[in-house]
Amino acid sequence: MEIEIENKVGSSFKHSFSFSQEEVNAFGKLTGDNNPLHWDENYAAQTIFKKPIIHGFLGASVFSKVLGTIFPAEGTVYLSQEMKFMRPMYVNLAYEAVFTIQVIDASKHRAVILTQVFQVETQKMCIDGKAEVMNEQKF
Amino acid sequence: MEIEIENKVGSSFKHSFSFSQEEVNAFGKLTGDNNPLHWDENYAAQTIFKKPIIHGFLGASVFSKVLGTIFPAEGTVYLSQEMKFMRPMYVNLAYEAVFTIQVIDASKHRAVILTQVFQVETQKMCIDGKAEVMNEQKF
Repeated sequence: MEIEIENKVGSSFKHSFSFSQEEVNAFGKLTGDNNPLHWDENYAAQTIFKKPIIHGFLGASVFSKVLGTIFPAEGTVYLSQEMKFMRPMYVNLAYEAVFTIQVIDASKHRAVILTQVFQVETQKMCIDGKAEVMNEQKF
Repeated sequence: MEIEIENKVGSSFKHSFSFSQEEVNAFGKLTGDNNPLHWDENYAAQTIFKKPIIHGFLGASVFSKVLGTIFPAEGTVYLSQEMKFMRPMYVNLAYEAVFTIQVIDASKHRAVILTQVFQVETQKMCIDGKAEVMNEQKF
């Protein structure tokens, strides 16, 4: 899955996604992060989050998905990712990841891309961050 | 699973892990990051990596696992994570995640923890990074 995106500083693109409780449970099992905050409703009800929250790493994995498969897609070498978990993310809610090209270094085929996640309904930012990637075809 | 770790600046702890190709495939399916670099031997052979590599996010998920379930464990609020993917990680190799407490802000119950992954055999660093976490019981 590749889409045409203008490879210039300031251009941005969006990707919608959500996760189910079953996917959160699968992520916990796969990674070993079985903190009850992510699956135990009674436990979560006693916390500031009130209900189970998605693992930050699972929510942010949309960056890996999009950078590796949509833009820049094939040939991407993932160099770094910063992420700030600003607000909790919950299952079955609609989220949108927004990517904005900040810097392109054509001599090194590298780009710095702002990577952010917003809850669609509230438009509040849940994850703020940026990635550095290398892609010989795209940059 | 909780272990006794000295909650002071400079103390460190280690956690061994590895991933199988089946786990890499499951991560790709779960997150949608189905870049052939992670599962297609013929495709990977044509790249600088020579064979399929683990998704950076899957390798780095050891940070989420350890911070959420081992130290500081229960009650941890994950505030941020930086990670630099220094070298590729491969399936069925032994890796060690090393956590070193850099800063403790007791007034805010927060800590900055250096998070790094080394390949056990070569002792070369594969992921460099740091996390900021809040835990009212531990800091």
